[in-house]
Amino acid sequence: MTPQFELDQALMERYVTELAQFGAFGESGVKRAAYTPEWVAATDHYAAWCEQAGLDVHRDAVGNVWGRLEGATPGKTIASGSHIDSQLPGGRYDGALGALTALFVLQSLKKQFGKPKRTIEAVAFCEEEGSRFPGANLWGSRAVTGRIKPTEAEQLRDYEGVTIGQAMLAIGLDPSRIPSAARTDIDTFIELHIEQGPVLEHAKLPVGIVTGITGLRHYVVEVMGETNHAGAFPMDLRRDAMAGAAEMILGVVDTAAKLGRPAVTTVGRVQAEPGYPAIVPGKARFTIDVRHPDADCLRELYRAHERLLRDVATRRGLQVDWEITLDQPPSPSAPSVIRLLEESATQQQIPHMRMHSGAGHDSQIMANVAKIGMIFVQSHRGRSHTPDEFTNMEHIMLGARTLAAAVYQLAYR
Amino acid sequence: MTPQFELDQALMERYVTELAQFGAFGESGVKRAAYTPEWVAATDHYAAWCEQAGLDVHRDAVGNVWGRLEGATPGKTIASGSHIDSQLPGGRYDGALGALTALFVLQSLKKQFGKPKRTIEAVAFCEEEGSRFPGANLWGSRAVTGRIKPTEAEQLRDYEGVTIGQAMLAIGLDPSRIPSAARTDIDTFIELHIEQGPVLEHAKLPVGIVTGITGLRHYVVEVMGETNHAGAFPMDLRRDAMAGAAEMILGVVDTAAKLGRPAVTTVGRVQAEPGYPAIVPGKARFTIDVRHPDADCLRELYRAHERLLRDVATRRGLQVDWEITLDQPPSPSAPSVIRLLEESATQQQIPHMRMHSGAGHDSQIMANVAKIGMIFVQSHRGRSHTPDEFTNMEHIMLGARTLAAAVYQLAYR
Repeated sequence: MTPQFELDQALMERYVTELAQFGAFGESGVKRAAYTPEWVAATDHYAAWCEQAGLDVHRDAVGNVWGRLEGATPGKTIASGSHIDSQLPGGRYDGALGALTALFVLQSLKKQFGKPKRTIEAVAFCEEEGSRFPGANLWGSRAVTGRIKPTEAEQLRDYEGVTIGQAMLAIGLDPSRIPSAARTDIDTFIELHIEQGPVLEHAKLPVGIVTGITGLRHYVVEVMGETNHAGAFPMDLRRDAMAGAAEMILGVVDTAAKLGRPAVTTVGRVQAEPGYPAIVPGKARFTIDVRHPDADCLRELYRAHERLLRDVATRRGLQVDWEITLDQPPSPSAPSVIRLLEESATQQQIPHMRMHSGAGHDSQIMANVAKIGMIFVQSHRGRSHTPDEFTNMEHIMLGARTLAAAVYQLAYR
Repeated sequence: MTPQFELDQALMERYVTELAQFGAFGESGVKRAAYTPEWVAATDHYAAWCEQAGLDVHRDAVGNVWGRLEGATPGKTIASGSHIDSQLPGGRYDGALGALTALFVLQSLKKQFGKPKRTIEAVAFCEEEGSRFPGANLWGSRAVTGRIKPTEAEQLRDYEGVTIGQAMLAIGLDPSRIPSAARTDIDTFIELHIEQGPVLEHAKLPVGIVTGITGLRHYVVEVMGETNHAGAFPMDLRRDAMAGAAEMILGVVDTAAKLGRPAVTTVGRVQAEPGYPAIVPGKARFTIDVRHPDADCLRELYRAHERLLRDVATRRGLQVDWEITLDQPPSPSAPSVIRLLEESATQQQIPHMRMHSGAGHDSQIMANVAKIGMIFVQSHRGRSHTPDEFTNMEHIMLGARTLAAAVYQLAYR
């Protein structure tokens, strides 16, 4: 028997709208980079809401904000949340929605059911995007899981050259205290997030239960041929690096397209050198982003791509070289949490489906110290990392209801 | 009966080596942009050599340097030359060799045969490359043929924002006098130039007789799809502008490759937007350079490329748009000059072949006011527009000998 949860849509709506004012960009967007005044104001506001909701507020060493509802019995805690930094500009839902629904659910459960048996926490993580400090991605959750290397605070810099350590000091956070943010007392972490893709919308379902987060690699590929005059050099004597790169790009993208869901391959950045219309490029560089939630399929996809790069280069008399700049294994959700979230949605009569996450999330880091699970809500037209991002309030409430039922099950039963 | 021409290789060698000191770049390269101090010094030196050779020196309104050997009878003149500005950096042969062999041949003929029947002129043109002032290509020869528009001196700017008119004034040239550079008294213009491609070297021939200069177009193509998250957006729902662009690039390049010589198509510049590894590009831009010396084939090639762009876009649900930023018809050499140059090479027992020029040259502009012809000499490994450019002195002398025989035929017989 699951109770009927009393969830106040007007309050949820207010949270989303008000938080979006911090770093507001245009009509609907947000530009809220970690450790900037807008980000500080947003965390202050989040902390104030936690206090108003009767939660114990704690800011850890990197500036993650925790709102805690102490349970009657000792033991590990149940946590939920996401990040409140944004892409530059991004939308108001990516990340923020997870931090806000966590607070909203804790507040609602407290109001309706009082003190829980087990401790529950809502968290607003910082710098998940790495949008200000490239390489600092998942900074907040990495601090919580003890995964920030001692040198990072001095090494990672923003586009103005400010280190992340300096940026922390400037707002009163001491980088030498980063290790103190580590937690070992979290039993389960559940993150609600917008899907950032069009799968739920196409399936006409409001909610997705995430079975795992995709593994991925970033390749930076360099193709080397010979720079020549575009007019004076016959086609049959050229070693055109860009023509080879085009065949490679088309090849890897089509490989993933033919494999079909959930394989994805993207070439997002391309450069021909020297880069003049009338010069046959002697060099071409491009990135490949490859993702698959299944570790074996992912390995096979990597192999197929690498084989294709080599084959094209050989056939065209080019050299090819690559660097792997990012290499993340798939991160499956905890089976017990997947089941719990599915049961919660079913009991609440919320239409849902299982799906994987093609994007990375704080959950994949939290998986190192806790059982994790994720709830996705629809992204209109799959838009994300843009001010166009939109999720309607009805879907947000269905996601929050799924979360409420799961947290209730874990903390009140 | 053609005489044995007395051509002093040591002098020719000295000309090449000494001119390369003006704007010397590295061991073998040159960086000599129009109207810079290095360029001024080079033209001063060229003028001094002309004077030492007993030629009448004249600098026209745009700074082209003319060395004139007055003929015994009145009438139109026989001219030869090329440009002495360079790519940034370029080699020491592109252009410079044509200006120097013209001077060298006039000087040698004068020494051996005295006053010609018809007037002969050697010329060093300025800003053929457009390497300092984009859009000012063929500036010197355009001035000589009255093809500089009145607004250009104020509109064309270098990368620092200086107009070409200001740059002229700074070295004592008055842009308002540009029209005075126009000539209508040139009968024949012969340009010796390095091939800039590998065709002569592959054919093991020192000299090429140019039948005409290729026609060409530059397209700037824009492909529009939809920007999406590289992880969260399934392949089957994407409209990936870069994947479409890759298919187009591969398609146009392969079309020209299949057609074979002399068709050439090059994609020298490519850009994906927004240009991040983890974002499916919503836009891609690239250039296409298309060339063919035959007007009908060229038109057919344009049509084939445009059809391919549209077909790929339609099939992939993308939009495609293009701008034609350069559109030059083929410029055939004068049949009488082709015959003369062939006869000259044959009489001098110089192995040669007919070929077209895939690159643009001052000759194509001079064709508006004179009969034109070109002599190509081998480019080692087809290298050009780079300090690696190299032509051996033996080939230079065979090219100069061909030029000497032709000029002798026109001016002394």
